[in-house]
Amino acid sequence: MRRVTLILAAVAAVAGAIPLVTPEAGHADQEIYVTRIPSGYRDWRLISVAHEAGELNDIRAILGNDAAVKAYRENKLPFPDGAIIARIAWKYVPSEENNKIFGREQSFVPGAPPAWYLQFMVKDSKKYAATGGWGYAQFDQKGNPADRKKMSTCYPCHEPIRGRDFLFTRYTP
Amino acid sequence: MRRVTLILAAVAAVAGAIPLVTPEAGHADQEIYVTRIPSGYRDWRLISVAHEAGELNDIRAILGNDAAVKAYRENKLPFPDGAIIARIAWKYVPSEENNKIFGREQSFVPGAPPAWYLQFMVKDSKKYAATGGWGYAQFDQKGNPADRKKMSTCYPCHEPIRGRDFLFTRYTP
Repeated sequence: MRRVTLILAAVAAVAGAIPLVTPEAGHADQEIYVTRIPSGYRDWRLISVAHEAGELNDIRAILGNDAAVKAYRENKLPFPDGAIIARIAWKYVPSEENNKIFGREQSFVPGAPPAWYLQFMVKDSKKYAATGGWGYAQFDQKGNPADRKKMSTCYPCHEPIRGRDFLFTRYTP
Repeated sequence: MRRVTLILAAVAAVAGAIPLVTPEAGHADQEIYVTRIPSGYRDWRLISVAHEAGELNDIRAILGNDAAVKAYRENKLPFPDGAIIARIAWKYVPSEENNKIFGREQSFVPGAPPAWYLQFMVKDSKKYAATGGWGYAQFDQKGNPADRKKMSTCYPCHEPIRGRDFLFTRYTP
């Protein structure tokens, strides 16, 4: 019993350190999550790339609109309102075509879009004040937004990187 | 002795199938290789991403100028004169910062630029007729072009993918 109390106390302490995202109803959801895909994102400039192994097992590109790329290049924090970061992920697969030509198992390329195909962070310091000024969005390969439960995991994971305005990705020249 | 002859015959057969790039002197070099970094390439749109394991061990982004992206999106072969493909590579390194937050070894990101930092393919069907209409270029992290010996390996490796206008990279939506 005492042990359970200690665990609960620890959980409460962590919960206190990480502001929980608990939108109450429709209107509150709108102020924390983004439910529409920003137009033209596929034409935005490149911020960086990454490979997430493990359960995700994807290869991804991080793009930014003009405001986001400008802020990254000028190293200005926090990012200005209007900045949007796009993250496109594809399944991480070997390229049999490339490997056959190279004569070795070397090449890994984007495969099919996964259920976590598209993510966005939209900066609006007033509208999304509850989540560090960023609204979070996720869409599957059909353009359907993720449900509220899924979206509630975004901000708590980004919160530890608060010192870089909640952005994991660093700009890669 | 007979075995050596057979091997030599096999090598000759392969050499016959892959047109060798043997520029004779200064002027001929100019017509096969590109010696200047195309301006503004870092602002170009994304074609795709990849991870090359093995000796290269890099993570890379492939960008295209407007003519190249248009040709990719419209699936038009061969690519028009003026199309340029840029390939930027960075060393493939684990992100200790991300992994610490995620609580697992998952994240691989771009590290320092390697000696094979930048590559370009520039389409000019007349100027680069000897190498399938594409001029090849490679620059290190200081902007120095690769030497002639290194550059002579570009076209023979791209030649097997002649059916897709010598382009390994597929456009990733």
